Amino acid sequence: MRETTPLVHNITNYVTVNDCANILLACGGSPIMADDIEEVEDITSICQALVINIGTLNQRTIASMIKAGKKANQLGHPVILDPVGAGASHLRTGSVFKLLQEVRFDVVRGNVSEIMTVNSGAGSTKGVDASADDRALHQNTGRAIDLGRQLSRKVGAITVTTGAVDIVADPANAFVIRNGHPFLGKVSGTGCMLSAMIGAFCGANLDRRLEATAAAVCMMGIAGELAYEKTEKYQGGTAAFKIHLIDAMSQIDENILKARTRIESR
Amino acid sequence: MRETTPLVHNITNYVTVNDCANILLACGGSPIMADDIEEVEDITSICQALVINIGTLNQRTIASMIKAGKKANQLGHPVILDPVGAGASHLRTGSVFKLLQEVRFDVVRGNVSEIMTVNSGAGSTKGVDASADDRALHQNTGRAIDLGRQLSRKVGAITVTTGAVDIVADPANAFVIRNGHPFLGKVSGTGCMLSAMIGAFCGANLDRRLEATAAAVCMMGIAGELAYEKTEKYQGGTAAFKIHLIDAMSQIDENILKARTRIESR
Amino acid sequence: MRETTPLVHNITNYVTVNDCANILLACGGSPIMADDIEEVEDITSICQALVINIGTLNQRTIASMIKAGKKANQLGHPVILDPVGAGASHLRTGSVFKLLQEVRFDVVRGNVSEIMTVNSGAGSTKGVDASADDRALHQNTGRAIDLGRQLSRKVGAITVTTGAVDIVADPANAFVIRNGHPFLGKVSGTGCMLSAMIGAFCGANLDRRLEATAAAVCMMGIAGELAYEKTEKYQGGTAAFKIHLIDAMSQIDENILKARTRIESR
Repeated sequence: MRETTPLVHNITNYVTVNDCANILLACGGSPIMADDIEEVEDITSICQALVINIGTLNQRTIASMIKAGKKANQLGHPVILDPVGAGASHLRTGSVFKLLQEVRFDVVRGNVSEIMTVNSGAGSTKGVDASADDRALHQNTGRAIDLGRQLSRKVGAITVTTGAVDIVADPANAFVIRNGHPFLGKVSGTGCMLSAMIGAFCGANLDRRLEATAAAVCMMGIAGELAYEKTEKYQGGTAAFKIHLIDAMSQIDENILKARTRIESR
Repeated sequence: MRETTPLVHNITNYVTVNDCANILLACGGSPIMADDIEEVEDITSICQALVINIGTLNQRTIASMIKAGKKANQLGHPVILDPVGAGASHLRTGSVFKLLQEVRFDVVRGNVSEIMTVNSGAGSTKGVDASADDRALHQNTGRAIDLGRQLSRKVGAITVTTGAVDIVADPANAFVIRNGHPFLGKVSGTGCMLSAMIGAFCGANLDRRLEATAAAVCMMGIAGELAYEKTEKYQGGTAAFKIHLIDAMSQIDENILKARTRIESR
Repeated sequence: MRETTPLVHNITNYVTVNDCANILLACGGSPIMADDIEEVEDITSICQALVINIGTLNQRTIASMIKAGKKANQLGHPVILDPVGAGASHLRTGSVFKLLQEVRFDVVRGNVSEIMTVNSGAGSTKGVDASADDRALHQNTGRAIDLGRQLSRKVGAITVTTGAVDIVADPANAFVIRNGHPFLGKVSGTGCMLSAMIGAFCGANLDRRLEATAAAVCMMGIAGELAYEKTEKYQGGTAAFKIHLIDAMSQIDENILKARTRIESR
């Protein structure tokens, strides 16, 4: 991917947008953020992928998301949906369903609460983090796989359910990924960053979107492991961890990936 | 507080929003940012506190602030106001007065210029930092206490005036807090972060909002002291200080707090 | 400059805004971000400079940029334009031309693609980074100087073209600056930060805007060199580099500047 430098169009939230830009640069992509309805078609046309993140959606940007999504569909660009906080408000849940109706997504990535909400139309999202009930469910890897596959069939997209264990699923396949570290949940934006990376990986590997998605998930997990090791070494806390995470992403090479990847096909 | 993980709804500025999210996670809370008028009532309903920060206010978000504030009032949730830059424009000053008219705030936190503006309707705010005249005034702790108490009586909220010395006041009580470090003023967002934390602390201690507010102020000051020590040790500058600040917040325990708290009741 | 603490009004993007605020504090300025049309005239009136950055422009903020720019012109404040991604969409390119028609800019800063677009009305911007063709052109320092001078004559502003080598030009003068490090291109926001700093430097040196601009460019480059040395020492990556960059800016003194500046007048 580092050879192609895929340009990724992000319509995303203002909370974690800087981290998304920097993780894209660190993993070998290039970011552009643009959300005005007058320019999203132009911008998405010069990119290799589109990532739609509803973290701080508003009426103006929802319209831009739909317009950009339709254009990316026309061009055959991978389109990623991060339904941040789906279930937390009628606006969020309704916007997710509207987006899924109007735009064909290649990948939907969320925590288990968000994925359940998208799957069921209900859900029990507590803000933007997985609720305790959902965490319990998630420990049942079999059920999480079923959930991912079910949603994948419904919406025709690869699904990524992140948590203690990460699941990448389409109707026919499922990968269980056991990389990562609990500190990834103590920093704002690691989910958003992963969604942005999935955009870059799919944009650079149009014909192998499932594998590209799984690779992005593994890479984020491994970067989290490396970051935690460095955080511990220097007795840092959560902010140092985020710095080390982006650092690790800019330094990871193929050998590290091969040695550390813990992925299982189900 | 770390046991309850209070969820805090932030309608805040796009400059320091990421720091607010991460400091909330570091201190044991959980953040959600949402500012569209169609969803702020839903979002605030699933939270334990609401923090309104006018740092980059606009016509659209002012309406959302009022709507969210009214809903939080109905639900008995603590509501915090950070009047960033009050006095710097008619829009800011006017919006603060409108908010105070429409919404019942539990805490108002600002620097001495902002607190003076809110108190008097005038003020001499130089941007978002305390002006020299106000700094001089602030060295007169007695006058700063009077100011805080006076505003508290007027608006029926606890007031927090931050600067070289921090004052937490209500009509009957005043705390003078001597924790902190000058580097806290050399980094963007330490005031915003404190306001977010006050939301989390009050949300987790509904019956002891004054003490919760004072505790948040002490904790930020102590984290600043610890962060400066680490910054000096590694010969870092202001950016390293901010990382160490959030790190310290994620690492502070009760023993450190007890040993370092410098609070005096007046 | 550290004696005058110029206050800089930024109408800027939400991607790199926090870095802009912190670099302004680190270099001795003071930031205020405000983009609502109702307050931009008030805000710019209490500032010493205005920086307009179109990185995440929208219809609402374009109007605010024009209004703020006209007011700053009336007051004789330096006005800086950062045409982020000019050429990437009709909205961006059109807005740049509209801004140049309505507002008198003192400095226009961009990468070579952006400067070419502003100069020609066409260009080949690939997102927000310089495209390969443009990088090749840029290695021809003579042509880059011609470009900067040509645009300077057209728009009556100092031009700053940043890349492997930085060019500061007005119709009569050109400086070639060879400070900096390639890592500055691996982090989001170093261009935006430089534009913000140019605002502070010009605001503090109204009568020597060309020299002030060149000084800001040198200082950013030198901070980049110092940051890279520290990044290497601690085996950090791109995120550590950004921290060290802002740290270096907060620590640089006159002796370091004198020893390291590599500027040549053409």
